[in-house]
Amino acid sequence: MPGFNHLYIPGPTNVPDQVRMAMNVSMQDMRAPDFPAFTKPLFEKVAKVFRNTTGRVFLYPSSGTGAWEAAIQNTLSPGDKVLMSRFGQFSHLWADMAMRLGLDVELIDCDWGTGVPVEQYAERLNADVAHEIQAVFVTHNETATGVTSNVKAVREALDAAKHPALLMVDGVSAVGSIPFDQDAWRVDCAVSGSQKGFMLPAGLGMLSVSKWALDANKRAGYARTFFSFEDMIANNNNGYFPYTPATQLLHGLNTSVDMMLDEGLENIWARHHRLATGVRKAVAAWGLDLCAQEEKWYSDTVSAILVPEGFDARDVISTAYSKYNTSLGSGLSKVAGKVFRIGHLGWLNEGMVCTALSVAEMALIDTGIKIEAGSGVGAAITHFSQTAADATPKRAAA
Amino acid sequence: MPGFNHLYIPGPTNVPDQVRMAMNVSMQDMRAPDFPAFTKPLFEKVAKVFRNTTGRVFLYPSSGTGAWEAAIQNTLSPGDKVLMSRFGQFSHLWADMAMRLGLDVELIDCDWGTGVPVEQYAERLNADVAHEIQAVFVTHNETATGVTSNVKAVREALDAAKHPALLMVDGVSAVGSIPFDQDAWRVDCAVSGSQKGFMLPAGLGMLSVSKWALDANKRAGYARTFFSFEDMIANNNNGYFPYTPATQLLHGLNTSVDMMLDEGLENIWARHHRLATGVRKAVAAWGLDLCAQEEKWYSDTVSAILVPEGFDARDVISTAYSKYNTSLGSGLSKVAGKVFRIGHLGWLNEGMVCTALSVAEMALIDTGIKIEAGSGVGAAITHFSQTAADATPKRAAA
Amino acid sequence: MPGFNHLYIPGPTNVPDQVRMAMNVSMQDMRAPDFPAFTKPLFEKVAKVFRNTTGRVFLYPSSGTGAWEAAIQNTLSPGDKVLMSRFGQFSHLWADMAMRLGLDVELIDCDWGTGVPVEQYAERLNADVAHEIQAVFVTHNETATGVTSNVKAVREALDAAKHPALLMVDGVSAVGSIPFDQDAWRVDCAVSGSQKGFMLPAGLGMLSVSKWALDANKRAGYARTFFSFEDMIANNNNGYFPYTPATQLLHGLNTSVDMMLDEGLENIWARHHRLATGVRKAVAAWGLDLCAQEEKWYSDTVSAILVPEGFDARDVISTAYSKYNTSLGSGLSKVAGKVFRIGHLGWLNEGMVCTALSVAEMALIDTGIKIEAGSGVGAAITHFSQTAADATPKRAAA
Amino acid sequence: MPGFNHLYIPGPTNVPDQVRMAMNVSMQDMRAPDFPAFTKPLFEKVAKVFRNTTGRVFLYPSSGTGAWEAAIQNTLSPGDKVLMSRFGQFSHLWADMAMRLGLDVELIDCDWGTGVPVEQYAERLNADVAHEIQAVFVTHNETATGVTSNVKAVREALDAAKHPALLMVDGVSAVGSIPFDQDAWRVDCAVSGSQKGFMLPAGLGMLSVSKWALDANKRAGYARTFFSFEDMIANNNNGYFPYTPATQLLHGLNTSVDMMLDEGLENIWARHHRLATGVRKAVAAWGLDLCAQEEKWYSDTVSAILVPEGFDARDVISTAYSKYNTSLGSGLSKVAGKVFRIGHLGWLNEGMVCTALSVAEMALIDTGIKIEAGSGVGAAITHFSQTAADATPKRAAA
Repeated sequence: MPGFNHLYIPGPTNVPDQVRMAMNVSMQDMRAPDFPAFTKPLFEKVAKVFRNTTGRVFLYPSSGTGAWEAAIQNTLSPGDKVLMSRFGQFSHLWADMAMRLGLDVELIDCDWGTGVPVEQYAERLNADVAHEIQAVFVTHNETATGVTSNVKAVREALDAAKHPALLMVDGVSAVGSIPFDQDAWRVDCAVSGSQKGFMLPAGLGMLSVSKWALDANKRAGYARTFFSFEDMIANNNNGYFPYTPATQLLHGLNTSVDMMLDEGLENIWARHHRLATGVRKAVAAWGLDLCAQEEKWYSDTVSAILVPEGFDARDVISTAYSKYNTSLGSGLSKVAGKVFRIGHLGWLNEGMVCTALSVAEMALIDTGIKIEAGSGVGAAITHFSQTAADATPKRAAA
Repeated sequence: MPGFNHLYIPGPTNVPDQVRMAMNVSMQDMRAPDFPAFTKPLFEKVAKVFRNTTGRVFLYPSSGTGAWEAAIQNTLSPGDKVLMSRFGQFSHLWADMAMRLGLDVELIDCDWGTGVPVEQYAERLNADVAHEIQAVFVTHNETATGVTSNVKAVREALDAAKHPALLMVDGVSAVGSIPFDQDAWRVDCAVSGSQKGFMLPAGLGMLSVSKWALDANKRAGYARTFFSFEDMIANNNNGYFPYTPATQLLHGLNTSVDMMLDEGLENIWARHHRLATGVRKAVAAWGLDLCAQEEKWYSDTVSAILVPEGFDARDVISTAYSKYNTSLGSGLSKVAGKVFRIGHLGWLNEGMVCTALSVAEMALIDTGIKIEAGSGVGAAITHFSQTAADATPKRAAA
Repeated sequence: MPGFNHLYIPGPTNVPDQVRMAMNVSMQDMRAPDFPAFTKPLFEKVAKVFRNTTGRVFLYPSSGTGAWEAAIQNTLSPGDKVLMSRFGQFSHLWADMAMRLGLDVELIDCDWGTGVPVEQYAERLNADVAHEIQAVFVTHNETATGVTSNVKAVREALDAAKHPALLMVDGVSAVGSIPFDQDAWRVDCAVSGSQKGFMLPAGLGMLSVSKWALDANKRAGYARTFFSFEDMIANNNNGYFPYTPATQLLHGLNTSVDMMLDEGLENIWARHHRLATGVRKAVAAWGLDLCAQEEKWYSDTVSAILVPEGFDARDVISTAYSKYNTSLGSGLSKVAGKVFRIGHLGWLNEGMVCTALSVAEMALIDTGIKIEAGSGVGAAITHFSQTAADATPKRAAA
Repeated sequence: MPGFNHLYIPGPTNVPDQVRMAMNVSMQDMRAPDFPAFTKPLFEKVAKVFRNTTGRVFLYPSSGTGAWEAAIQNTLSPGDKVLMSRFGQFSHLWADMAMRLGLDVELIDCDWGTGVPVEQYAERLNADVAHEIQAVFVTHNETATGVTSNVKAVREALDAAKHPALLMVDGVSAVGSIPFDQDAWRVDCAVSGSQKGFMLPAGLGMLSVSKWALDANKRAGYARTFFSFEDMIANNNNGYFPYTPATQLLHGLNTSVDMMLDEGLENIWARHHRLATGVRKAVAAWGLDLCAQEEKWYSDTVSAILVPEGFDARDVISTAYSKYNTSLGSGLSKVAGKVFRIGHLGWLNEGMVCTALSVAEMALIDTGIKIEAGSGVGAAITHFSQTAADATPKRAAA
């Protein structure tokens, strides 16, 4: 189909030109003497994006799912009791993994459209005087429903209960896009992947761990090799890897974290909030509802939008794709057919949001859903115009 | 600035991924024995895009300006009388070149916002019973004002007058985007460049000539070497070039003409018309006027939009650029400050048009021009939704 | 340093331009309706490279190490007795993994420079009348020592003993380069990675399994999620993946397997044998020895070359790298300092081999090792000249 | 054919990865307000490569041939008397152009294999007391025969004669590779192209002019537009161009001149001399002769090698190409069939030279020319080993 494919799924996200250029490389020797001069600063920069100063970062050639598994295998033991909650496809999948890996999962099922039930977590933690719970799991941003949970509040609940459990956070669609502070919140294992806020192709699983997680690693009872911290640490300490790393992606990552630190994390977070607000104003203008049930759950990286009763959101998505060359996110599992999703994270600006909203309008109209053409985009335009920085200095054409 | 730069100037246009991939090549020997197996079919495919079966196509490492000069040097002689008209910056520049190269230019100045004055051309041709006029020049699409002229009517005027003058057409922002038929209209020299409908970076000047132009070449009195047809023909006939060709761009061109012929020229023209109509509906919804004075002049590749009295269009353009990372076309020369331009040609679809319109709305609002947010995009959305093909088969992910 | 880096390690190998171009892509939706039209033929083509018609192929975003783990987790159970042998760093690492994952490893230690001890394997299999051995492991090509083992003979030993154990083969530096026939040898799990014969960047772990391995999967007792066959199969059957696949690499893989099947596997094997023979003739001309102790062990993908007593092979390697911008393979573990390695696999031709040999000569001379300048390259040149195909038809410049 | 194509023609040369990455860009607005922040430093850096501080540099979307024409059109007038010499295909072509453009060419024909006849030039200049000669032309490096002329000596002859003629130098295969000093030698027009020492694809013609050339421009009588200094100056002074520039190549150029200035011009020259010496030692070891008749003519960027009587050099070249995927330079015009050429300029190191020499040996042997296999490469290896810098600090993997 003519024209660019417009990619507004919540990952993979759009890759900046600079990153794409950085990946257009010849291969190199991953055992070369100057390889550490490339990797060691890279590890440090990635840790800065997580705001992790106590521990370290692992970069696996894998996916976010792999990093989930790495977190469990390296800090827990089969049979360990853990506290989890489920309110969407990705929190479901992590819980499913935990159970399949033999953890004793205390699973709190919540409405899809809500997030981590901090009060219930607090209750359980307070009740667990024997400290049987070894880890508490949080899906920071549930990509399936567009819900952001309060990681900080979970940390506060742990601290209030003086509970030593590890805090495990799925930050795949959060880190590098919305506020995340591993140190301040003492997140022990923060999972992410390359294809979201890091603006890279899929292929890297990232795991940023605190020093407490590194301590736990020594007691962890899982058999492990590919994801083993020990092997990684022994090699990473010298700037190398226990097996051939995905150097092409590492070069892309090097550029993307430079760009992120150059823009500034707070600026990135503010940008995501402003752009996401535009999307939400559009949804309101259309007269539609978000899957996220309350404002406190609103995600600044993805919006899951409910279609009215009697319509199938899959028609919106397939129309956008087949008629307008635009990829919107589909509803997964329980919300299949009920929601379509707009990913608004990563390398994003006003014009890109308006593209997504415009195509969504066309697809909604074509599907027979009554909205006023231009209403949503117009609402976003008004918001963006009112909130634009007065003078955005342009960088020189690079 | 974060997010993609949105490029909606009337050239360079957006380069398709496939073309970009094709240009990511190592260098090669332009005298290799298998080089002609690449170039000969390429010449044929480019000629197809021009609909030229009587003559041949020249590919210069240059620009459209270079191809203008090539056309003059190779078919005319200093002092030759030629008929030209001026109604925008690019028709001005070609006339300026003709005068500086020593042609005896009979220049008809027209209102900017109109196009080639066919009736006046007809008059002069009819009056020129001695056939002193050696060539008639037509700027098919005046990129500065968004005006398309009627090449076919000029051919008819020539034929009605039984006048043997050559028909020289500047098709830089026309060929490959709007209807162009070199054979049917017997265009003798059709000039184009790589960075418009051909969807490539700038760097190639294209000149497609009829057999009558090749005949004229034998009599042409200009000294010439770099742009010489003779040198090109002697080498191109064997699949080679008289000097090192820009092989990287030729590889891109090979891919882009394949894409164009694959989509089909009529389909491309229809797509441009449909998308341009969306832009014009947006302009109307804003309550603004085009620089093109009548519908018959409307260009399907670029719209020059007048800002109301009391405003400076440069503010709209600089706002779009500095606040919204979007490149709109500026007003040139006489219309500087009066118009901003939206390029809508090349690798384009509905979502891309809506991007340009959305940013234009933000920039207009920020500049203080009263428009209703969403009105223009909404009008385009309605148009696109009403006119979308029912089932656009997707090509497999490539 | 000026000039290209010459990469002659046994992986990552040199990436063809065509593959590099294919990876220069924008991101795409891995849940799009036309994604299976891309992935399903891809799975089939990869299976053809393995010559696997009974089972299927898994493509993990990981590394060869990950595929090793996937093979074990999905077909065996903790405590299972397996037969392995160790004669180099990579056979060591796989055995180490097996032990750490809790298998009961019967490990035969062999001289480094030899390969899988087929006779001893046969003995153990014949002796194992109770069929306690669940799997037999073979490192097809030990990359550390440049030794190729006889997979077919192990299959014959299994068959002769009428032993039902699974045959697990590490084909990381073998598949796609030297003769490999999963069907004929009934290999149950064939492990490979993207960065060797597949001529891609690192980042994909490949596992090609027979139908017997798929049967074993149903009984396999390991907890697994990331590498789980079940999750992969459920999704791959529809052309999708259980988590975000590395689409950039999949596009590269699509191109590289097309190139491989286009060249023809037998032709690729013959090419590797001819080029490797040139390397071995050079080594002989230098008066040096291979680590591989007998001709039957010679690897056609990598040569590990012993330096004379009193010299440190690391000096050769660091000289090649720091003075001549060339990456040679280092000696690992037991053979560190004793060998340097030349990788000669993947996208390779005569000129590339001569590059590696020329630089090796400079580095040897600089290190003080007495060789005659030009002797090795000359021997290779003579071999290549004598064995070159008479008429290699060139493909058209693409 | 498998493996990299080995490109050892004297241009296009091999493009560094960094440059290739820099050209993998989206298009941009060449009238954007921040475009000058990119172009103005670029002009300055290019001028540094020419060592031009008195005048300025013009960057045309064209080729070296275009820059030849630009030099003539902008500084001379039809009928002007000029002094030229011819001793190879490229000095021939420039003279041919000068004559076709109507200059009164006093042409000294020299043996192919020699260079500019400085003594004869001096004679004519001394004899020209009326200063009728308006310009003296020098082909600095005759690419067809591998001959470098003495530009400095020509300047000295001009000065000794107190002759005001302009000094026009074709530096296409010289600038950026061998010593060139526009200021010191007061070269008035120095022509170059992107695809040689600048390590870029073809597509840019470069013309670096002195202030005396800029003065001459005011008197120049040629009609001109595309190559007009005036139009360029008016726009370049503000950082823009009179027509759409080839921004993709400009980005590549920006990177390549950074790399050149970073390596240091003297270091680049020394590197070329050292590598070229290796080639010449190989030629001597083969028992063959260069086309360049004396050492003083030896070119450090290209060697034209004579094949023995009774052989056709075209067989060597076609064998290298069709059997070994290697591009060697062919003999042009008078020396067709008599020489094959090895280009050794640009992004080059020892291993690359050895590649070219090794393939040349195979092709010579296959053609039936008696040389000892390994003799030439061995001689080069010995030279490189003896002259290698002790410690070449590696830059970090970038």
